[in-house]
Amino acid sequence: MFVIRSADNTKLKTIRKLRQKHWREKLGLFVAEGEDLVAAAERAGWEPEFVLRAGRDVAPDLLSQASALGSGSRAIGVYAQRWSEPGGRLMVWLHAVADPGNVGTVLRAADALCDGPVILGPGCADPYSPKAVRASMGSVFARPPARAPFEDLPGTRIALDAHAGEDVRAVALAEQVTVCAGAERRGLPEAALAGADAVAHIPLRPDGPESLNVAMAATLALYDLARRMAAHA
Amino acid sequence: MFVIRSADNTKLKTIRKLRQKHWREKLGLFVAEGEDLVAAAERAGWEPEFVLRAGRDVAPDLLSQASALGSGSRAIGVYAQRWSEPGGRLMVWLHAVADPGNVGTVLRAADALCDGPVILGPGCADPYSPKAVRASMGSVFARPPARAPFEDLPGTRIALDAHAGEDVRAVALAEQVTVCAGAERRGLPEAALAGADAVAHIPLRPDGPESLNVAMAATLALYDLARRMAAHA
Repeated sequence: MFVIRSADNTKLKTIRKLRQKHWREKLGLFVAEGEDLVAAAERAGWEPEFVLRAGRDVAPDLLSQASALGSGSRAIGVYAQRWSEPGGRLMVWLHAVADPGNVGTVLRAADALCDGPVILGPGCADPYSPKAVRASMGSVFARPPARAPFEDLPGTRIALDAHAGEDVRAVALAEQVTVCAGAERRGLPEAALAGADAVAHIPLRPDGPESLNVAMAATLALYDLARRMAAHA
Repeated sequence: MFVIRSADNTKLKTIRKLRQKHWREKLGLFVAEGEDLVAAAERAGWEPEFVLRAGRDVAPDLLSQASALGSGSRAIGVYAQRWSEPGGRLMVWLHAVADPGNVGTVLRAADALCDGPVILGPGCADPYSPKAVRASMGSVFARPPARAPFEDLPGTRIALDAHAGEDVRAVALAEQVTVCAGAERRGLPEAALAGADAVAHIPLRPDGPESLNVAMAATLALYDLARRMAAHA
């Protein structure tokens, strides 16, 4: 069996290139690092471009060197990016969420809590970056993200704000809802707050922090709305 | 004004030492990196051992080199660790949550949602590691964590499990509640599941992921219980 023993191998070079967003966009590919993610891809029916397993296909130290996460991955798979369309009863739209860990966390939370995809607006981290893929824990395979500007979002748009608007537990339900959440500090842009059908906040303790992390806020809103929408179904 | 221009400076050496848990325990100190965290400490009334500000107290490149997070921090503060006692109406206990980002995230979420502290059980990441402090976004100053084994937890203990037990929304309330959450894959140890007053799970979509990230699961449970406890107060 052929075992890669040179860092100049084309597959290892591809893996290293895919650390960069530029190359991910150009090639339309991305990397999933670790046996769990490769298994998640398989469960979700994704055919890899290729998978390299340490010791079987490639010398372990060469695979580690190619890894973007530097965690001594035993397997790295390369896959073609897929994008969903907005749809379903409950979705979440992110604006300018630049941290890939937050984007990946929302991918996982939405997969667990609602039937529609995560929709990425302008300024979001690449959901196919190694960190976002890892944070999604495989949900990027189960439920690929969508992309759309605010204007194109379907259904009733509920804009999350740290303090303004109604308590999210009281906001009116609709047949189809898109929860909109903005970046950590700045929140949503004016146009989204003004254009939304409702503005809502997560009620927090008065002497607690100013706001929640965006992934937490989005997750709590999805949890609350999904629960209420199921009860009213 | 004296500006530090040598990496051998005692304060810079202390900051570098405090990257290691060993030194944090030995000295009882920890580091907060960044102007936001230093400001959060001040707001919470913490007197620093010292603060170094880039350009004012220290050459910027030297401060960057001392940084554990490598994000070009403009300010680094050193503080004495504080530990709370368990108490309040609603608390959360973590077991073997080894990821400092998750520990910090729960510190922040608990600060936002419940009146009691985060209680760290065996095997948890150090809440005073640079990553945990950063993830707490200053909540480690507002609400320092406590430490206790499962046996010493006060109130009614609700053990979170990925699938077993009751829907968390149906679990019986009590005057005082401690939510117990275990590590990402393994969950809580048998002794905690057996010793708890109730076992509960967060209801997830049937075709979604197996489980939520531990920080998400704990946050959703705190949100749900806090809401119901407030309604019944």
